[in-house]
Amino acid sequence: MLLRLKRFLIGRPMKSHELGDEKLSKLKALAILSSDALSSVAYGTEQILIVLITLGFAALWYSIPISIAVLALLTILVLSYRQTIFSYPTGGGAYIVAKDNLGVRTGLVAGGSLLVDYILTVAVSTSAATDAVTSAFPNLHPYRIEIALVMILFLTIMNLRGITESAQVLAYPVYLFVAGIFLMIIVGLFRVATGDVQATPAEFGLDVSGISLFLLLKAFSSGCSALTGVEAVSNAIPSFKAPSEKNAASTLALMGIILGSMFLGISLLAYFYGISPMKDVTVVSQIAEAAFGRGPIYFFIQGTTALILFLAANTAYAAFPLLAFMLAKDKFMPHAFMIRGDRLGFSNGIIVLGLLAGVLAIVSNGYTENLIPLYAIGVFIPFTLSQLGMMRRWYRLKPQGWLIRFLVNGVGMVTTLSITLIFLFTKFSQVWMVFIFLPVVYVMFQQIHRHYMAVADELRIDLATDKPEAKGNTIVIPVAGITRVVMNTISYAKSMTDNVIAVYIGFDDEDIEKMEKKWEEWDCGVRLIVLRSRYRSIIKPLVKFIETVEWKNSETGHITILIPQFIPKHWWQNILHNQTSLLIRYYLFKYKDVTISTVPYHLNK
Amino acid sequence: MLLRLKRFLIGRPMKSHELGDEKLSKLKALAILSSDALSSVAYGTEQILIVLITLGFAALWYSIPISIAVLALLTILVLSYRQTIFSYPTGGGAYIVAKDNLGVRTGLVAGGSLLVDYILTVAVSTSAATDAVTSAFPNLHPYRIEIALVMILFLTIMNLRGITESAQVLAYPVYLFVAGIFLMIIVGLFRVATGDVQATPAEFGLDVSGISLFLLLKAFSSGCSALTGVEAVSNAIPSFKAPSEKNAASTLALMGIILGSMFLGISLLAYFYGISPMKDVTVVSQIAEAAFGRGPIYFFIQGTTALILFLAANTAYAAFPLLAFMLAKDKFMPHAFMIRGDRLGFSNGIIVLGLLAGVLAIVSNGYTENLIPLYAIGVFIPFTLSQLGMMRRWYRLKPQGWLIRFLVNGVGMVTTLSITLIFLFTKFSQVWMVFIFLPVVYVMFQQIHRHYMAVADELRIDLATDKPEAKGNTIVIPVAGITRVVMNTISYAKSMTDNVIAVYIGFDDEDIEKMEKKWEEWDCGVRLIVLRSRYRSIIKPLVKFIETVEWKNSETGHITILIPQFIPKHWWQNILHNQTSLLIRYYLFKYKDVTISTVPYHLNK
Repeated sequence: MLLRLKRFLIGRPMKSHELGDEKLSKLKALAILSSDALSSVAYGTEQILIVLITLGFAALWYSIPISIAVLALLTILVLSYRQTIFSYPTGGGAYIVAKDNLGVRTGLVAGGSLLVDYILTVAVSTSAATDAVTSAFPNLHPYRIEIALVMILFLTIMNLRGITESAQVLAYPVYLFVAGIFLMIIVGLFRVATGDVQATPAEFGLDVSGISLFLLLKAFSSGCSALTGVEAVSNAIPSFKAPSEKNAASTLALMGIILGSMFLGISLLAYFYGISPMKDVTVVSQIAEAAFGRGPIYFFIQGTTALILFLAANTAYAAFPLLAFMLAKDKFMPHAFMIRGDRLGFSNGIIVLGLLAGVLAIVSNGYTENLIPLYAIGVFIPFTLSQLGMMRRWYRLKPQGWLIRFLVNGVGMVTTLSITLIFLFTKFSQVWMVFIFLPVVYVMFQQIHRHYMAVADELRIDLATDKPEAKGNTIVIPVAGITRVVMNTISYAKSMTDNVIAVYIGFDDEDIEKMEKKWEEWDCGVRLIVLRSRYRSIIKPLVKFIETVEWKNSETGHITILIPQFIPKHWWQNILHNQTSLLIRYYLFKYKDVTISTVPYHLNK
Repeated sequence: MLLRLKRFLIGRPMKSHELGDEKLSKLKALAILSSDALSSVAYGTEQILIVLITLGFAALWYSIPISIAVLALLTILVLSYRQTIFSYPTGGGAYIVAKDNLGVRTGLVAGGSLLVDYILTVAVSTSAATDAVTSAFPNLHPYRIEIALVMILFLTIMNLRGITESAQVLAYPVYLFVAGIFLMIIVGLFRVATGDVQATPAEFGLDVSGISLFLLLKAFSSGCSALTGVEAVSNAIPSFKAPSEKNAASTLALMGIILGSMFLGISLLAYFYGISPMKDVTVVSQIAEAAFGRGPIYFFIQGTTALILFLAANTAYAAFPLLAFMLAKDKFMPHAFMIRGDRLGFSNGIIVLGLLAGVLAIVSNGYTENLIPLYAIGVFIPFTLSQLGMMRRWYRLKPQGWLIRFLVNGVGMVTTLSITLIFLFTKFSQVWMVFIFLPVVYVMFQQIHRHYMAVADELRIDLATDKPEAKGNTIVIPVAGITRVVMNTISYAKSMTDNVIAVYIGFDDEDIEKMEKKWEEWDCGVRLIVLRSRYRSIIKPLVKFIETVEWKNSETGHITILIPQFIPKHWWQNILHNQTSLLIRYYLFKYKDVTISTVPYHLNK
């Protein structure tokens, strides 16, 4: 039943050599990896305006130079990451680059930061998409969390099905969103050029009283939230079709160009149309309404915007499992993250991401907007470390023309570091949590690593000298009566060794006497030891007895407990059997160094 | 940690011979077994008045004759149950009496009815007690369910501690409640007698238009809800101090007298004070206010009333586990209900009752008042069957003076049967569920019984001819590499048999070649079989391999899979290991007839 449900949801299992088919073409990669970055234009300009409007309408013209600054930053990031892609064709995420050039510890800071960030991406994006849905259908508002959770569940299942099929589903909305925004920008600017717009924008270049560097920096850092998601491509190079690094670099450049044009276009339109941020209507919505009126094109733009926010969450589903895989390979996360599922995705990573994002959505009660700055700083820390790593690399390897590359990454490092500091400086009240979760994740990585290394040490043997030796073995069989199951178990034990002891635990004299007599009558060739339990406990007398055997047996070595286990025909019958044997298993296994053999007895009725 | 928490909540374990100390004295038994019955006076009179008031104030005088009829019924029940107690000194619940005299099937109907009823008792009583609490503190109203659940949890823990200690905690409120109600009745009637009351009661004996037999019967059956809980004593005879049947009979009589006096007293006061039922204030509350004003005595009566409703739920905690024990002994319920816990209570019964009542409280959203009629009919069905059983018994055994006893039970049977029919006739819309849950429980009992009997048949052996025989054994060890754990496991296997095979499951040629080479180099004396898995599944190739071994081995018999299991030092390290071995265990156990031995490997780090 469960298996059939799994097949229906996830699809048939795939062979390992089908892995190649699952690689992404450039266009598909653009859809699946860039929806996070592209969706940011839905709120990037607005974030800038929200900060500026605190000084009044006249200050809004600053959004143009600030947008250009963000654009410059985007260019720097794209150029820097292009270099990373070619240097690390097997996947050049911040974790790899930082680890490779700055040491494991720095790599873990970058990796941990990104890992937490992907969870935030899913929670924040699905909440934002939910907002879009509930804005359209206000009567759905009480079900915000449920809607967000359904989205997360849907994303999880889709990703368990495999990355290419997901991309096919996801590609169209991204294309439509890009087409819609470009249409809006072209039509909008054309109408501005033809003087078709009545709005009076804030006077450009006017000195506004109260403007401060702090405020401008704050507005700039807010605008930088439009750049989250740029790193996704460099993390996912192995998912590209060959030649993967070239395709990845082209995809990154294409994404940068599209993102930059859309962002600048929206900022310009917002300025020319004299739009100020409103509480209930987004800036993009205001522009679309001003350009097209509340017609079908308006609703088309609104709809695709809502959809792409939902898809932005999907980016994390591509990135998180890959990063978890890399960390697990380096023994910083549980091995389970290295296992590819039936459909060749890293199932455990996908499931864990879905679960954690779901928990985050629940505990934040669906209002994750406040997490956006935290989410942004969580991206800029690994950005900075990755650039620093690349600088170190150029300096170390000094290939031809290294100085210019060093400078490109140097500029990238300085700017991303500055932005990280600006975040801390201007928005500390929203980002302080980074100082809690980063150390926690870091310590977790280290603990897991230490554990795996210690175990590997402990388990290592010398092939030449360490060989298995046969020792003695005592088999203990707890019996509650004389039945076919007991006979079966004794027969099994006798086929292993002659050293077999049956143990009966009685609660009162009458039972004990009866059992002893019956056993004698049976005469099965195995000695019966009777223990009296005054507390009606099975476990304690058994443990004591095993300790005695251990003490007597210290040289011969092994002790085996044989526990018969009923396998009923119907699952519900399990609650009618096996409770005691489960208890015995659990206790003995936890506290004693004995081998526990469960001998199955399949019930026919 | 868990163990320490258990000790703190439940107390130290007790020896079996301490069981005697856990027996109840008469006064304690009154407190623990009769709170259900006594608490009914809190709403019995009110239930009658609610039906009568539909015809107007003038009809309220009918409550006096109806109360006297209920009183007569109570007398009949007490007399009948006295006879049961002496006939069944080891416990004469409806299940035992009906089974003994009318056959197992009838017994199961009675037992099933009571079992479900005890769950209803807990849910209904805790909800009613919650109502009392939230009436006093209206701002607690949104937390009704939470309060009810806390009460259920508290009752469950208290009962897991053991019955005597519970009684000590619970005895005082019962005594205080009885004292309070008697004080109210005496003072109230004294004030009526001295003409100190201004109220004008409905004219006694006046013919009221619209009165019908249907309505009078409905009012009567509503009043009968005051009699739920009377059977508790006869179910719990073994819990009494010796001479248990005499003590139980005295307790029953004492309870009957107290219950009858309180019920009649409240009905009389309600009449003389001219009280009609109100939506927000209970009848008892109105009487108390009229007799004492809103002073300390009023609050004392309200408080103890609330408390005793809570304690009524506790009656079910004494009765349910005992009945479940009897049903389990007869193999109609899982054996697990026969196990006495550390504190000598039937822990599983207590826990299951708590869980089911909690679920009921949650699904009914804390509004269980509508369940009261269902709860009443669930008591009267076993009442009737029990009386019928006693009649059959007298007729069959014919002891000296049997005819008078036969008649006593006969009258009891006829009246309780009539009330059952009245319930069905006047309140079908509220009691129809009995026709669903009774068949479900009945079928469940039969299924469990059939299963246990079939298994017992299957397991029975002939001591003279059936003896265990030694056969061959093949040990299969899945290995993932060559480590100390593998060496350990092979060493263990070699101490059992020479027929040992190691199995390696590889995903690609490189791994396989490496492993084969290393194994050869090691030369441990065990053959390695390599399986290639194209779907990255460990399970499927292993299962196939075992099928081959089974086929080759069909004569020699046993196959054992040795699975090494890591026992880490800290519990959290478990998520870093053992996933694959758990999976293997689960699948092979479910689908194959192989013995699975888990060889522990205790990690030091």
